[in-house]
Amino acid sequence: MHSPFPNKIGILGGGQLARMLIQQGQNLGLEMHVLTPLASDPAAQVTRFWLAGDPRHKADLLRFLAEVDLITFESEFLDSPTLQQITKVTKKTILPDPQTMGILQDRLSQKKLLAEFKIPSADFVAIQTMDHLTAAWKEFPQGLVLKKRRFGYDGYGTYLVHTRSQLATLAPVLEQTKDGFIAEALVPFKRELAVIAARSTQDELRFLPLVETFQENHRCLWVKGPLKHPQLKSLSQRIARLLRETNYAGVMAFELFDTGRSLLVNEIAPRVHNSGHYSLEALATDQFALHLKAISGMPLGPTVVRTPGFAMLNLLGASANIPQWTLPPNLSLHWYGKIENRPGRKMGHLTTLDRSPQAALSRLLKAKKEFKL
Amino acid sequence: MHSPFPNKIGILGGGQLARMLIQQGQNLGLEMHVLTPLASDPAAQVTRFWLAGDPRHKADLLRFLAEVDLITFESEFLDSPTLQQITKVTKKTILPDPQTMGILQDRLSQKKLLAEFKIPSADFVAIQTMDHLTAAWKEFPQGLVLKKRRFGYDGYGTYLVHTRSQLATLAPVLEQTKDGFIAEALVPFKRELAVIAARSTQDELRFLPLVETFQENHRCLWVKGPLKHPQLKSLSQRIARLLRETNYAGVMAFELFDTGRSLLVNEIAPRVHNSGHYSLEALATDQFALHLKAISGMPLGPTVVRTPGFAMLNLLGASANIPQWTLPPNLSLHWYGKIENRPGRKMGHLTTLDRSPQAALSRLLKAKKEFKL
Repeated sequence: MHSPFPNKIGILGGGQLARMLIQQGQNLGLEMHVLTPLASDPAAQVTRFWLAGDPRHKADLLRFLAEVDLITFESEFLDSPTLQQITKVTKKTILPDPQTMGILQDRLSQKKLLAEFKIPSADFVAIQTMDHLTAAWKEFPQGLVLKKRRFGYDGYGTYLVHTRSQLATLAPVLEQTKDGFIAEALVPFKRELAVIAARSTQDELRFLPLVETFQENHRCLWVKGPLKHPQLKSLSQRIARLLRETNYAGVMAFELFDTGRSLLVNEIAPRVHNSGHYSLEALATDQFALHLKAISGMPLGPTVVRTPGFAMLNLLGASANIPQWTLPPNLSLHWYGKIENRPGRKMGHLTTLDRSPQAALSRLLKAKKEFKL
Repeated sequence: MHSPFPNKIGILGGGQLARMLIQQGQNLGLEMHVLTPLASDPAAQVTRFWLAGDPRHKADLLRFLAEVDLITFESEFLDSPTLQQITKVTKKTILPDPQTMGILQDRLSQKKLLAEFKIPSADFVAIQTMDHLTAAWKEFPQGLVLKKRRFGYDGYGTYLVHTRSQLATLAPVLEQTKDGFIAEALVPFKRELAVIAARSTQDELRFLPLVETFQENHRCLWVKGPLKHPQLKSLSQRIARLLRETNYAGVMAFELFDTGRSLLVNEIAPRVHNSGHYSLEALATDQFALHLKAISGMPLGPTVVRTPGFAMLNLLGASANIPQWTLPPNLSLHWYGKIENRPGRKMGHLTTLDRSPQAALSRLLKAKKEFKL
């Protein structure tokens, strides 16, 4: 009856990423626990092992860690020092390593990490004051992006600067934020791409296929793939080195800019990612199972693509009503069971497989018109 | 925020059928509840809405019904009169109708129902005494099957009689069972098939594809499909009439004998069925989602087959260890999370899609050899 692998997995945070980690872990036979405040949180609904609590509170974390063998998270915006400390106290493991989480949740140290492994990325400088920003403009006269070093997401904490005169409007922003900023050269890109890599504690490596992601108002609308790119091989080799040399365990998601000439990393997330949801239907091993296997030290299994084309469409909030489900054939629905609805909130997603990425996307976009939310 | 459909679905019983109903219901956005004794039961692990209790106990049923909008079950072996009574008291609906459950859980009334709708099935007589059995032998001199009228499953309560001299050995069996028996003519069949039908409360009808099922020691080892049969159309029309005229709601599974000349119904189950697990991967709408939509009155959606071939392999108990998961590509694992392991117990299943039913089955059988349980 003894398994050589950790059997009780705890997830910090209870949104849709945690929900899908739980569902896929259950199919693998794992006992999936979640720490999240509300019983109605998407992930709390799908397991008996819900602990009411906040992953940002130490006392809640300690109670939760006592119940599980191995811990992971659905968001990198947790307090890295606290997590590092409690793993020492409890002798429990959190993967990916909270130290890496700490590096990645700060855009400045994230950029330095990319530079260290020669992973192409937009040029940048650290910004604390208006003087820094004015100096940055001289370096990036074609335009720049000012980004909060910490806790920015989905466009929050990101400011596009196209003309020198816009700089002055950012003075109050700089004053209000203690953590500081980075300024990046504005990169004119043809399209946005993404790729997910995984490394297991047993040093197995996998890459999911390259995909295109389409954003509107900083929110992902759709994903399609698999795609090719002449620089993917070189990028993958550098990513592999990063994962190996930082002794990373789990999946890591890379958001990319395709400038036509080069493939630049825009952002990294040390977790499962919206750009990989298609994998539930399209890959032999999906990103959620892959992440759980990677942190548990299980054989990762194949990640081959089952189809010449796939696409994923986010269902953004317009109503918390369950859709009417008169879905055309070959569409798979994942509804997240969110109680509260806000405009633009991710309420669920659709996936389809087809003969090409574009055929799959076209079917989804057509279906969306007839899909009442 | 209001949905026109019942949102809180309760399932009586907590095995793997309930587990998969819950998982698929959650993807549809339904709040899935389960009544089952143990926290470690397969279905209790995958929802926050587990109530500890026994679906055979009235007090537990009453507590459970108070929490949900609509009730269904994973086993037809519950007490039909009790269920009928509590639906009157609580004004809650159980679907499929407990009255139909009562008819189907008794092999004699099940056979009469089949006869009423002219659905081909082996000839039978009711048996209570040795005199009846001796008379039955005269009617079925080529051999007969004695079956307990109630609570027989997976070969329990079923006795094959090939020679007249075997009849005497059944005297103690007849004496020990109050509920009585039926005797059926022994049907020499080429293969066993199965088909699942669904009818919604809105009178929508669907048929899942015909499949072959292979049993060993009365336990299903594998399923493959989709298959054709010249008599399927006629059978489906009669099944449709049965579902309509009994005002049935939900899926109903039909186990069939293919004698080479005719297609005979061996057994009916008013629930999701092992022979339909392949549908999770192979159909546009799987049997679990179909059942939930049918009882909720939602549009059923298409049940088209996504592939020219599919197969499902049951993973029968040899150990409760989680498998090592070095699965070949294109295999989907559903592990049920059972704590206790018994030889022959269904611990999980594998599904694959391929260019033909046989290609899919061959891949599964090959994989099984390398699959450590």
